[in-house]
Amino acid sequence: MRSLIDITDFSVEEVNELLDTACDIVANPEKYSEACKGKKLATLFFEPSTRTRLSFTAAMMELGGNVLGFDSASNTSASKGESVYDTAKMVSCYADIIAMRHPKEGAPYVAARSASIPVINAGDGGHCHPTQTLADLLTIYRELGRLENLTVGFCGDLKYGRTVHSLISALARYKNVKIVLISPEELALPKYVKYEVMEKNGMDYVETTSLEDSMPELDVLYMTRIQQERFDNFDEYERLKDSYVLDVDKMKLAKEKMLVLHPLPRVNEISVKVDADPRAGYFRQALNAKYVRMALIMKLLKEAAEGRQMPEPVDVVFDELHCDNPRCITSTEQEIVHTFKCVSPENGVYRCIYCEAKKIKN
Amino acid sequence: MRSLIDITDFSVEEVNELLDTACDIVANPEKYSEACKGKKLATLFFEPSTRTRLSFTAAMMELGGNVLGFDSASNTSASKGESVYDTAKMVSCYADIIAMRHPKEGAPYVAARSASIPVINAGDGGHCHPTQTLADLLTIYRELGRLENLTVGFCGDLKYGRTVHSLISALARYKNVKIVLISPEELALPKYVKYEVMEKNGMDYVETTSLEDSMPELDVLYMTRIQQERFDNFDEYERLKDSYVLDVDKMKLAKEKMLVLHPLPRVNEISVKVDADPRAGYFRQALNAKYVRMALIMKLLKEAAEGRQMPEPVDVVFDELHCDNPRCITSTEQEIVHTFKCVSPENGVYRCIYCEAKKIKN
Amino acid sequence: MRSLIDITDFSVEEVNELLDTACDIVANPEKYSEACKGKKLATLFFEPSTRTRLSFTAAMMELGGNVLGFDSASNTSASKGESVYDTAKMVSCYADIIAMRHPKEGAPYVAARSASIPVINAGDGGHCHPTQTLADLLTIYRELGRLENLTVGFCGDLKYGRTVHSLISALARYKNVKIVLISPEELALPKYVKYEVMEKNGMDYVETTSLEDSMPELDVLYMTRIQQERFDNFDEYERLKDSYVLDVDKMKLAKEKMLVLHPLPRVNEISVKVDADPRAGYFRQALNAKYVRMALIMKLLKEAAEGRQMPEPVDVVFDELHCDNPRCITSTEQEIVHTFKCVSPENGVYRCIYCEAKKIKN
Repeated sequence: MRSLIDITDFSVEEVNELLDTACDIVANPEKYSEACKGKKLATLFFEPSTRTRLSFTAAMMELGGNVLGFDSASNTSASKGESVYDTAKMVSCYADIIAMRHPKEGAPYVAARSASIPVINAGDGGHCHPTQTLADLLTIYRELGRLENLTVGFCGDLKYGRTVHSLISALARYKNVKIVLISPEELALPKYVKYEVMEKNGMDYVETTSLEDSMPELDVLYMTRIQQERFDNFDEYERLKDSYVLDVDKMKLAKEKMLVLHPLPRVNEISVKVDADPRAGYFRQALNAKYVRMALIMKLLKEAAEGRQMPEPVDVVFDELHCDNPRCITSTEQEIVHTFKCVSPENGVYRCIYCEAKKIKN
Repeated sequence: MRSLIDITDFSVEEVNELLDTACDIVANPEKYSEACKGKKLATLFFEPSTRTRLSFTAAMMELGGNVLGFDSASNTSASKGESVYDTAKMVSCYADIIAMRHPKEGAPYVAARSASIPVINAGDGGHCHPTQTLADLLTIYRELGRLENLTVGFCGDLKYGRTVHSLISALARYKNVKIVLISPEELALPKYVKYEVMEKNGMDYVETTSLEDSMPELDVLYMTRIQQERFDNFDEYERLKDSYVLDVDKMKLAKEKMLVLHPLPRVNEISVKVDADPRAGYFRQALNAKYVRMALIMKLLKEAAEGRQMPEPVDVVFDELHCDNPRCITSTEQEIVHTFKCVSPENGVYRCIYCEAKKIKN
Repeated sequence: MRSLIDITDFSVEEVNELLDTACDIVANPEKYSEACKGKKLATLFFEPSTRTRLSFTAAMMELGGNVLGFDSASNTSASKGESVYDTAKMVSCYADIIAMRHPKEGAPYVAARSASIPVINAGDGGHCHPTQTLADLLTIYRELGRLENLTVGFCGDLKYGRTVHSLISALARYKNVKIVLISPEELALPKYVKYEVMEKNGMDYVETTSLEDSMPELDVLYMTRIQQERFDNFDEYERLKDSYVLDVDKMKLAKEKMLVLHPLPRVNEISVKVDADPRAGYFRQALNAKYVRMALIMKLLKEAAEGRQMPEPVDVVFDELHCDNPRCITSTEQEIVHTFKCVSPENGVYRCIYCEAKKIKN
């Protein structure tokens, strides 16, 4: 069945349609209160994520549907060695749609290939989290009225932040979006995002280490957490951390209509005092996550009813290349066929269809 | 929104109204079967409590509503360092009312201040558990027909039993209730409950170490568990424990209509053989817990719809006094403002608004 | 209330009726979509089992009912020492029917004796798992059109596999069922099943160590997992394990209509490549588990409404014999009366009514 594993599985038109449906749900919730009556969402959370799970659960309930599932792998058959492939086949007997969170990259893709019902990727390790990106887009759209002609700053840990990478990929498909990358050098955006996403799409971007200097020009400021464990050097962490904390003083430098986003949970990277500022959009972002997930569940169930299938991957080689990424689902799933997609024939560049790890074929 | 953190947040009239609604639910359950249709209760249990959680869940389901949440902190964002304040703001996006259990005293109060939906305290450490008290009151009322003119015995661990302290506070507001405190000296009722609750309200009370001697005069016997770990001296525990076990022989000493209550779970402080006695009310008490929680959920949702707010605390000082109670939510919650309420201006006595710990201001 | 603890609690006629109801549910699901509206199923899983729990949950939801409960003992009052007897009494206040999984043998029987609502055994240690057996029977019936005149092979670990023992007991009540027992000697079927079930009922059976040799004559092949930890000798395990793995080559030896079953989860005892074979019935078996549980929940709720009680055990002795089985619920439940049923008066043979452990009374 048609599934959502990566935000680019949907065309821009499809994404825009989802945002419009979400806006209609906000305006007319009663219209949708029985849209999924008799349907069941399975929330398969192989690692905990309260916010994402509750948001999916609330979404399905507000559509009149039911929810079943689990909230951590410790209480599942996975601990008895069951494969993701088998779990997805089994759950297809008991639900109509799956939202899956998994620590291994590519696990929801394996599930989508095996299940006879749609699968939504609710976060697979450090790889993708497309419904977070949809929530981010909906919030920008509802608050600022557009997804084009924007200057968007990303601040904090840009190296490991999958929500940052995904949102940049999504914004690359809209006109005239300028990106401002604000981070210590240790946590700069990976080169492949810079080259393969931003430069390939002709996006304008700058890199800087100063949040203060960047504030005045931003339409959106996307905050992320800087984790101490990312630093080799504790003194360096101590020296840097405060300059990436958003507080009331720094907010004074921003535009009157600037929007502050954060995927949450925050720890201390945004002062609680900022919450009272009308530009603080992160709790409204949590609310939008529910609405856009409602729109998504409806879309995928509708396509499933129409028998719409996932596209087969093209230009792939089976069992020829081996994925060495230890965080890839291929490292643990039994009898899985290692599969790579050719992304640059002239240079022999391939990417694992599960985790997108790169491989050169001679 | 109006919330229930402590039983005294409600007036006696409000408590009586709740009990009357609960009795009407017992008599006409079908009348309420869609009372909360389309509404969602979030059960946020930062520590496990099967009985309380299932009772709240059943209550909401019998009102036609939905339930979402979690049953222990280990699978939540709290383990990623999220504050109670942020959790409550987030859950306000996904539910209509919260029932919160938390190991830290005052956590539900923090949640109630932050949430945009009503919060019910479902137990905060050793501090309060107001819905247990409502269940106790409903059971006495349904079984004996009154909350006045009663002799109520409390037996076992009166030192640490928060359900005992809360029920005494609640009964202090009814006329002519006599309290019989039955415990070993090591586990006697704390002085502040004696002085600030019973004596202040002119309640009649006696203290004794003998359950047998007290039996004949009691209208209600409230049993609690004596835990071995409360005793420094194992021999002392061994010597005492059997005298506080309720068995068939001791029941022979009681009035024909005496009511036995226990907040459950029991371990061995009431013999299983007593269950067959019609005076054993503890499983009916568990049933009443469901009905009174149904009444409470309806009341708070109704007041929320009317926009009724929590009262602001009066006579408070901010950031002047510091709470030193290690079990208080102020010991872990980030950026919280320590706040104390003056309870005795002439003596400079203040109490923490979160955990009620006492402090003298010079 | 009438409960299902062991598959033989139901007569063959009752089992056949359940299977017919399940077939009607498959054909006319909408007819049953509100059959349990307003009812609540409590899933009390004292040990995790995702598949069984999700299947019961989906079953109740497809009947229009609600589900509450817990998925592991760690988050329950059991960890505070509450007895199964008390838990069942408590849950009777909050639900209409219980599905219980418990590591101790006989725990669901204790619950059924104490609860005022029906109890379904969803697996008690290595003892019984009657709803798995019902799913197995339904799958054979739906796929092959009969439960008589069959040759059924059981392959793998026949010593510890409770699903194997239960299905043999169930099939013993149908005419002309031949059993083929395929296992290494270390994991052969226990003697008491051979003598007390198969021989007593005049079943035809053979024992063999070769899966390949048995394939051609089988109508049904029931696969189970061989666990390494069952072997004292690792080399022996290594030597044997592959001969009990079902792969595409071995399937070539089977009848065109042979049905492959497996209680799942599998680890590697059936090659993933076999899944594409139309004879691979194990995922359809998972689906049938849902339908037969729907039929069972309806049957027990109907009988509860009619006030039908569990039969009292006959020929029992109380407190005379002591059960020594450390996996029996009598080893942990407080104040439980050890109870034995006389199964052979002439030889003084008794069996524990909880776990069926044998005892000779002199």
